[in-house]
Amino acid sequence: MKSKPNVAVVGATGAVGLEMIKTLEKRNFPVGQLTLLASARSAGKTLPFHGRDIPVQELTKNSFAGVDLALFSAGGAISREFAPLAAKAGCVVIDNSSAFRMDDAVPLVIPEINAADLKNHRGIIANPNCTTAITLMALYPLHQAFRVTRIFASSYQAVSGTGAKAIQELQRQVGQVVAGQPVTREVYPHQIAFNVLPQVDVFLPNGYTKEEAKMENEGRKIMHHPAFRASVTCVRVPVYRAHSIAVSAEFEKPVTVAAARAVLLKAPGLDVVDDPARHEYPLPLAAAEKYNCQVGRLRLDCALDNGLCFWVAGDQLLKGAALNAVQIAEELLK
Amino acid sequence: MKSKPNVAVVGATGAVGLEMIKTLEKRNFPVGQLTLLASARSAGKTLPFHGRDIPVQELTKNSFAGVDLALFSAGGAISREFAPLAAKAGCVVIDNSSAFRMDDAVPLVIPEINAADLKNHRGIIANPNCTTAITLMALYPLHQAFRVTRIFASSYQAVSGTGAKAIQELQRQVGQVVAGQPVTREVYPHQIAFNVLPQVDVFLPNGYTKEEAKMENEGRKIMHHPAFRASVTCVRVPVYRAHSIAVSAEFEKPVTVAAARAVLLKAPGLDVVDDPARHEYPLPLAAAEKYNCQVGRLRLDCALDNGLCFWVAGDQLLKGAALNAVQIAEELLK
Repeated sequence: MKSKPNVAVVGATGAVGLEMIKTLEKRNFPVGQLTLLASARSAGKTLPFHGRDIPVQELTKNSFAGVDLALFSAGGAISREFAPLAAKAGCVVIDNSSAFRMDDAVPLVIPEINAADLKNHRGIIANPNCTTAITLMALYPLHQAFRVTRIFASSYQAVSGTGAKAIQELQRQVGQVVAGQPVTREVYPHQIAFNVLPQVDVFLPNGYTKEEAKMENEGRKIMHHPAFRASVTCVRVPVYRAHSIAVSAEFEKPVTVAAARAVLLKAPGLDVVDDPARHEYPLPLAAAEKYNCQVGRLRLDCALDNGLCFWVAGDQLLKGAALNAVQIAEELLK
Repeated sequence: MKSKPNVAVVGATGAVGLEMIKTLEKRNFPVGQLTLLASARSAGKTLPFHGRDIPVQELTKNSFAGVDLALFSAGGAISREFAPLAAKAGCVVIDNSSAFRMDDAVPLVIPEINAADLKNHRGIIANPNCTTAITLMALYPLHQAFRVTRIFASSYQAVSGTGAKAIQELQRQVGQVVAGQPVTREVYPHQIAFNVLPQVDVFLPNGYTKEEAKMENEGRKIMHHPAFRASVTCVRVPVYRAHSIAVSAEFEKPVTVAAARAVLLKAPGLDVVDDPARHEYPLPLAAAEKYNCQVGRLRLDCALDNGLCFWVAGDQLLKGAALNAVQIAEELLK
């Protein structure tokens, strides 16, 4: 990789794409030329980057000529079609969709956990699922110390995980409820304002959603831990930004709250926010727009003989998407 | 008990008290005279009952003369002070607070589960915690069929569980956020609008909240199952009414989704809402103001060798409080 690569952002006008551009700027990533790509509908718009207005271009097969690094976040179908073309053109793709995550030829990477896997890439690198990434930021350091066997987890996921249209849907529905008007739906199958939906992504034959299955599948790959088991319920909540996850984790080695806290205090990319007596614990509102995830509510699990409960929150547009992608890009430059 | 007892509602103007009055009316409970009791602040107000305006009186030591049945929902301190006085005056107390729930001399009853325990009462009967009651409505029939050993549960609890002031707090904060004004707090330690709070009730030395500990303690007593273990995270969400709970349950006997569904379809007070392909699953908005709880998202637990995941929702002011209290009163009349 060049020391100042030409970078393309695919899906530049989406909720994650916008965060990718902001994150490249904020972290002073050494961008040569920046190419913003999106659907024909968005072509012609401009987006600011380091004080300049960059035009958004339509994504085509020829978009990747001269591009060294492409950050994709335009959905699985776009990734499946264009990421191999980009890779063939000599570009390294960091893909935020689920299209290639479980492909054995594609590293699935959280830099704080398995940056070493990047050395095996063949042009495409996958960014993990947001809920999985945020959970693993707290779980992996505990796994290193105490060896996790399985987790039971429930998520509290923000609407921005669905995209910009879902943010608008929550805003619109809140206004409708406040005004006493009928609530209209476009994005979610049920009202999200003042409600919670026990469905994130589509259902699999075994009754889990795809989102729920990702925790186990992606967790195994990222942690290099094929025996890891995860029972997960993913729930959409009327929060704009940042996901939270309640976790019960079982370990092989004896765990104490003090030992777990000591491990988590040293973990990269993680803040321990855990002083219940002062009402201090991770909150989605507090985690929003922060690079670090937050962990707290540490306590021994009372239904596991060797387990720990914790509560983790993180900005799913950042650590769950844009930040992690840019961190991978930074690793590639090292 | 008289066939048409004189009934007092203590805490008549609170969120649960108002539901108690409505539930007595809707279910045509045979009320002789209705006495509405509250703090001096509320005395003088009137509340409607079967088309008449009933004055609210100040609760005093002498309030229970001639009262046969008193439904208490005015907090633990009021219950501890006045419930024994009422019982001494010959009144049967059904207490919605946590004051007497774990008292060996006090039955803790969900009529669909352990109505038989009522025969041992000595004047005071306890109504269970709302989150516990809603969870057990689905868990107990499964326990009867498959023998539960432990559960891992996370709750999504509505603000009305805190009371009328919390409903106003969510309404006010939503208005403040929409108007771009600073958010003010009176009830919760953090903003609840567009946020989730991993704290319901106060913290115990072991790191769990009181609310979280109730599931195990009250569950053991109600199910007559002293070995039952429950690892719970209780979370407040910006929903006005009805709690939801994500549960992973481990059983002694082999469980299948089909066998579990067959059991739940026959369970009293419970609706099975479980057709994910049609986006049908329990929702707090749908469970609100309903007598029955709803269960769905049935699937084998992928981290337990013999477990089931489910999602249950119920109106915590009804099955979690007022309805259950009136159902206990109905049992006493049988």
